[in-house]
Amino acid sequence: MGVGSSKNRVDAWEKVTGQAKYTADLMPQNLYTAKVVHSTIANGWVKSFDLEEALKVPGVVKIVTCFDVPDIQFPTPGHPWSVEKAHQDIKDRKLLNRRVRMYGDDIAAVIAEDDIAARRAADKIKVEYEEYPVILDPEASMKEGAPLLHEEKPGNVIAHTSFVLGDGSFEEAACEEGLAVIEKEYRTQPVQHCHIEVPVSYAYMEKGRIVIVTSTQIPHIVRRVVSQALGIPIGQIRVIKPYIGGGFGNKQDVLYEPLNAFLCTQAGGHGVRLELSREETLGCTRVRHAFTWKIKGAVREDGTLVARKYEAYSNQGAYASHAHAIAANAANIFKQLYQDEKVLESDSYTVYTNLMTGGAMRGYGIPQGDFVTECVADDLARAVGMDPLEFRLKNCVKEGYKDPHLGIAFHSYGLKACIEKGREYIRWEEKRKAYENQSGPVRRGVGMAIFNYKTGVYPISLETSSCRMVLNQDGSMQLFMGATEIGQGADTVFTQMAAEITGITEDRIHIETVQDTDTTPFDTGAYASRQTYVSGKAVKKTGELFKQRILEYAAFKLKLPCGDMPLGEEKNAEAGAGASEAAEACAESSAWKRLDIKENQVIDKASGEVLLSLAALAEEALYSLKKSVHITAETTSHCKENSFASGVCFAEVEVDMPVGKIRILDIINVHDSGKLINPSLAKAQVHGGMSMGIGYALSEELLVDEKTGRPLNANLLDYKIPTAMDTPDLHTDFVEMDDPTGPFGNKALGEPPTIPVAPAIRNAVLHATGIAFDSLPLSPQKLVERFMKEGMIGAKSGKLKGGETHV
Amino acid sequence: MGVGSSKNRVDAWEKVTGQAKYTADLMPQNLYTAKVVHSTIANGWVKSFDLEEALKVPGVVKIVTCFDVPDIQFPTPGHPWSVEKAHQDIKDRKLLNRRVRMYGDDIAAVIAEDDIAARRAADKIKVEYEEYPVILDPEASMKEGAPLLHEEKPGNVIAHTSFVLGDGSFEEAACEEGLAVIEKEYRTQPVQHCHIEVPVSYAYMEKGRIVIVTSTQIPHIVRRVVSQALGIPIGQIRVIKPYIGGGFGNKQDVLYEPLNAFLCTQAGGHGVRLELSREETLGCTRVRHAFTWKIKGAVREDGTLVARKYEAYSNQGAYASHAHAIAANAANIFKQLYQDEKVLESDSYTVYTNLMTGGAMRGYGIPQGDFVTECVADDLARAVGMDPLEFRLKNCVKEGYKDPHLGIAFHSYGLKACIEKGREYIRWEEKRKAYENQSGPVRRGVGMAIFNYKTGVYPISLETSSCRMVLNQDGSMQLFMGATEIGQGADTVFTQMAAEITGITEDRIHIETVQDTDTTPFDTGAYASRQTYVSGKAVKKTGELFKQRILEYAAFKLKLPCGDMPLGEEKNAEAGAGASEAAEACAESSAWKRLDIKENQVIDKASGEVLLSLAALAEEALYSLKKSVHITAETTSHCKENSFASGVCFAEVEVDMPVGKIRILDIINVHDSGKLINPSLAKAQVHGGMSMGIGYALSEELLVDEKTGRPLNANLLDYKIPTAMDTPDLHTDFVEMDDPTGPFGNKALGEPPTIPVAPAIRNAVLHATGIAFDSLPLSPQKLVERFMKEGMIGAKSGKLKGGETHV
Repeated sequence: MGVGSSKNRVDAWEKVTGQAKYTADLMPQNLYTAKVVHSTIANGWVKSFDLEEALKVPGVVKIVTCFDVPDIQFPTPGHPWSVEKAHQDIKDRKLLNRRVRMYGDDIAAVIAEDDIAARRAADKIKVEYEEYPVILDPEASMKEGAPLLHEEKPGNVIAHTSFVLGDGSFEEAACEEGLAVIEKEYRTQPVQHCHIEVPVSYAYMEKGRIVIVTSTQIPHIVRRVVSQALGIPIGQIRVIKPYIGGGFGNKQDVLYEPLNAFLCTQAGGHGVRLELSREETLGCTRVRHAFTWKIKGAVREDGTLVARKYEAYSNQGAYASHAHAIAANAANIFKQLYQDEKVLESDSYTVYTNLMTGGAMRGYGIPQGDFVTECVADDLARAVGMDPLEFRLKNCVKEGYKDPHLGIAFHSYGLKACIEKGREYIRWEEKRKAYENQSGPVRRGVGMAIFNYKTGVYPISLETSSCRMVLNQDGSMQLFMGATEIGQGADTVFTQMAAEITGITEDRIHIETVQDTDTTPFDTGAYASRQTYVSGKAVKKTGELFKQRILEYAAFKLKLPCGDMPLGEEKNAEAGAGASEAAEACAESSAWKRLDIKENQVIDKASGEVLLSLAALAEEALYSLKKSVHITAETTSHCKENSFASGVCFAEVEVDMPVGKIRILDIINVHDSGKLINPSLAKAQVHGGMSMGIGYALSEELLVDEKTGRPLNANLLDYKIPTAMDTPDLHTDFVEMDDPTGPFGNKALGEPPTIPVAPAIRNAVLHATGIAFDSLPLSPQKLVERFMKEGMIGAKSGKLKGGETHV
Repeated sequence: MGVGSSKNRVDAWEKVTGQAKYTADLMPQNLYTAKVVHSTIANGWVKSFDLEEALKVPGVVKIVTCFDVPDIQFPTPGHPWSVEKAHQDIKDRKLLNRRVRMYGDDIAAVIAEDDIAARRAADKIKVEYEEYPVILDPEASMKEGAPLLHEEKPGNVIAHTSFVLGDGSFEEAACEEGLAVIEKEYRTQPVQHCHIEVPVSYAYMEKGRIVIVTSTQIPHIVRRVVSQALGIPIGQIRVIKPYIGGGFGNKQDVLYEPLNAFLCTQAGGHGVRLELSREETLGCTRVRHAFTWKIKGAVREDGTLVARKYEAYSNQGAYASHAHAIAANAANIFKQLYQDEKVLESDSYTVYTNLMTGGAMRGYGIPQGDFVTECVADDLARAVGMDPLEFRLKNCVKEGYKDPHLGIAFHSYGLKACIEKGREYIRWEEKRKAYENQSGPVRRGVGMAIFNYKTGVYPISLETSSCRMVLNQDGSMQLFMGATEIGQGADTVFTQMAAEITGITEDRIHIETVQDTDTTPFDTGAYASRQTYVSGKAVKKTGELFKQRILEYAAFKLKLPCGDMPLGEEKNAEAGAGASEAAEACAESSAWKRLDIKENQVIDKASGEVLLSLAALAEEALYSLKKSVHITAETTSHCKENSFASGVCFAEVEVDMPVGKIRILDIINVHDSGKLINPSLAKAQVHGGMSMGIGYALSEELLVDEKTGRPLNANLLDYKIPTAMDTPDLHTDFVEMDDPTGPFGNKALGEPPTIPVAPAIRNAVLHATGIAFDSLPLSPQKLVERFMKEGMIGAKSGKLKGGETHV
């Protein structure tokens, strides 16, 4: 029971049997359907629509175009709102856009009685455009003369931030004698979240208010953004979040809820559903930002890191969404993962282009930042012939590290212990040595990458969370969180936490899975690996108050005498017929402190004697003619702490060079995430993240036509996520340490597992082949081309330089 | 704004446009349908079923019979549970009953994929019975040798209670010289509530719990009774109550929810809907208890009431339901409406029969008790030739009255003022005189009846209610009540109360109409005219705490200095850059007491100066990086007060004797209900009650076949509720007085309007014709038979004694 046990998921039965109700399962019978009309150009203006034929389609209720929407620009990222204007998110889109900035931009919507009518009408809408050249690359977008995507951002640059750590410049530090210096460019590609449940919602009006049922990670933020987008008070909006089939950050953006809400108002408050296709999901929602980096690094012969210079271009695509927060995060890990350099220079640009919009995705810039950081680490180690593990032990961030800008620190530090565990598991030295001198067409290597990751967003942004507990008449508890279950197991760990704090067993804790901005408490939502840490504090705080209120009632019911004598003695001395009135006064006193709850029983804290069942107490609390109380507790926890989690990935690969294929022979993630609330769920979380990292490393890339900006593989047949067949056995381990800032000694684990996988694989390939691939994915085409260029395989596949033949 | 204004209903728009969602509107798409199989005998046992043909019907999922249900007897009335066994409701039925006690008893249920399959299968079920004689009358049921309906109740008597007020016996008091003495029998009939929405529910399972969406007045009690009936913990059950289309007490009983819940478990947790037909609603749910009374009364020549003796037989029908609580209430008004007699003897019996089960219905025994009390009053006045209004003024309950058993008192007393208002309106003396000596076939008369009515159930039972308020980010409020809107306007008056207390205007208060035992707070529900009084106190208490929390945050945000100087001066003296830290400490102090909220603005209480908008405060409270708080409040109000409401009905009628038709020429109810929260809604409430009283008086009666117990008119064609065509203009007036125990000076108004109507009409007919009808309804048949018997009309209709002809 409680924290630390591998309890089954509270929703396991429902999910396995198919009884769990997702948004589509809840839809009532008579909803209208909406289809979004997307632009077929990537840059330009909508000049006019011809709706005549479309309006003739039977079953069409209404067609709304970009000429009909409120003249309001609104932000979409799932950030806590800021009351300071300078920190507010960028408002750069309307519900439907006349100014088209990407292929597939939202320019109109059809409301119809059914799907077929909606789709037929959408197809019959004719659009006249004014068209501009398509720009897909940040550096091209920054050039003078490039068309501005958003007039208020000159040079298409959303933000440019820079900092220098240490004294002087990289160039000065690099002047030191005997240094090895590298200067390279690295790239990562746009990828998509590929949650199995596409964005889906429905909206209807009730008492003049708009109710939106939607698959989102952030119901309270959806509520706020819908209010901003439609220009109506937030109290007029209600957002309900049922079970969701994955989000991974894409649903940490407010995607189509504002449009759905607006369409419902345009249909007289009638229910309207809006469900994206997979093509729309990949092509029109959000992607992981593509990055280009120009990096310099300098290292002494003994492996001491001397200086690095970092220049990053983050491809924002058409709209700001999470914007520069991603690039800033990426730059942070470059800084935070190594320390004690003489100088670190950092410049980051986030730039609008006509690509799909970059948004939040598991790791929030860190998978990109860690890729470049950990490529650079291996490349520097290699430059001085040092073992890359030793390089990391020598230079990586150490116990006591504190970020000089943000003040975020390791309050528990397990990074080096993780490295040691992984080294032992993978038999690092043995394999590094075994794979030293290979010459065949199929070569093996081991590689590694480390990372760290902050827990939640404090102090960059607000961390606040609320929780409410209600005592049922049978002594069981209803548990309400603002924080959201999005498949990660949040409901299960919150249940365990509540059990730990209150003494009510988990089988008697009924957590509400459906977040409803009217009825469940406030929380900003599921992102930034924050919930077990930040929202866990809300569970703890509320649980303590809830337990106190129960024990106060118990003290009243038990006619517990005042004073602080050990309970047993005093009870005998004072209790009895006459003691009742005095005891009532004690309910308000501290008499309850002598009591505790253990396995649904009120006990004497000192002796452990069972005094009263919670069931009996709960029934009496409601129905007592003397003192009837509906025992509940609700508190907000405003979190002002943060702690770095960290970890490492070790990968052993086999590279079949003639066909460019990488096979993962073995892979392990070792995590320093503080105390584990539920070891089984933690392991499952790591598995999911590693799988996502493998796709990022090897096969995933959203491709667009360079001339038109049209997505080329916006479907799950052509866009390659790893299937079970592509995924090796995934190994996990943990270094469990009690983090003093975590509510239960815990810190971030949600996003971290995905972070170090790609660079570990890249470094393993480097070890196997000697080739430093500097971009993702490590696709067969890329590998074959490079091996050919390097002369390692012949021009014809199957023909190896050196006369060896590979079949 | 606030209390006392005739604000439009908060749900007016929704209800008028049809957007309001009732249980049937919420049903998802793939529910199974259940049909109950009812017995076709009224007394006996089910020996066996033959299900063979029924199970062959395509689409049948499962058939459950009385042999399959848990061996658990459970109670059904909507009472707060009692932790004392002696006060717990009678448990006398199972989910399906082998022992059949009424025609239409529930003996089996079919679950099928659709309605047609369910109905076809139900029709094909063959039942073998063992049959006993049918007993429909309480006195016959009490006779020795009558078959026992419930073995544990000898003589079929559920309860017999008696009391004597004063010294000696009626017989002794009646020995006094010169008294007029009457000895009579009175009767009232069984009637049904005829809510337009029939009982309807659906149930499904979620995370191993049962969710029941149902049209009920008492969601929390439904939760408890389902738990008892199925023998599973209450925390495993969730009850959701959407808008409901009337209840009037029938839905203050737990009707088919337990069976629906059980059937859902028998369908593997699949959703199952159970919607009664109108025939089932009239024949198988609950009715207003029929009563027979044997009354004696003695009065002096001067009109002084000397003594009364009351003997009541309440026809409980097949199951206990609310049982003797109804008869006890009826006896109470006989006692409480007149005072200062020498002696009052009272005996009440509640007796099982094979009639439809008697339950709660608007007035809860008082319409019956008031009928007999006010018939007796007129009959006694008539016996000594006294004006019945003067008789009442002389003998009726006076200011300062306190019930000698319960302690319930008039904390505000408006009864005599009501009588005066009504007397003036109806021009009592003028009409009593004008109609004195009529002889034609069509005669007119005026009559009256008074009543009083307690507010809620304290101290007989528990009165407890909770409320929760949440501050939205725009300064608007979510308001959650456990108390239920059942069409009476509760949501509107709670909104007005919340506005009054908090200073947030009604347009910014969003009340949750749907009660959900998981998310909305605890309350026992809508009955006993308790909610504006008892639950109003919860609104008041919670509103005060909520406002305090808002003002505490305001004090923090405004950096309000400590101390108790007038705010204006001190602000200038202390505030500024340096005062911030000291001010923070003040947030915990009493600085907030200097502030108030008026029309959504925080103001300086002393000067009225506007300091801050609630919208700005609310946004900051959530998003402040310094102090983020989700401002909410939730409290329980345990009510330990009660106050009598009272009033009068005056009716002027025209009796067309040859056809037995009563036309109401004028009618007015005048109510003493304390301060009115919403005068328009109060008036509407009175209109509805009067209409129900007119049906009770003139046309409504559930008829059953005397041999078989089969209902004869269980449909709205043959059972006559008044239509708009049957209803005269209804007049209302109020004597508004501030009741010190009411949260806003208010007391009961929900049920009272229906109480005095029937006796007032009966007394007007007495005035018009000189005939004292002693039973309801005053149907044409009854009137014609009596007038014929009295020789007032000829044997042939149209032929009057005395030679006059009526066409």
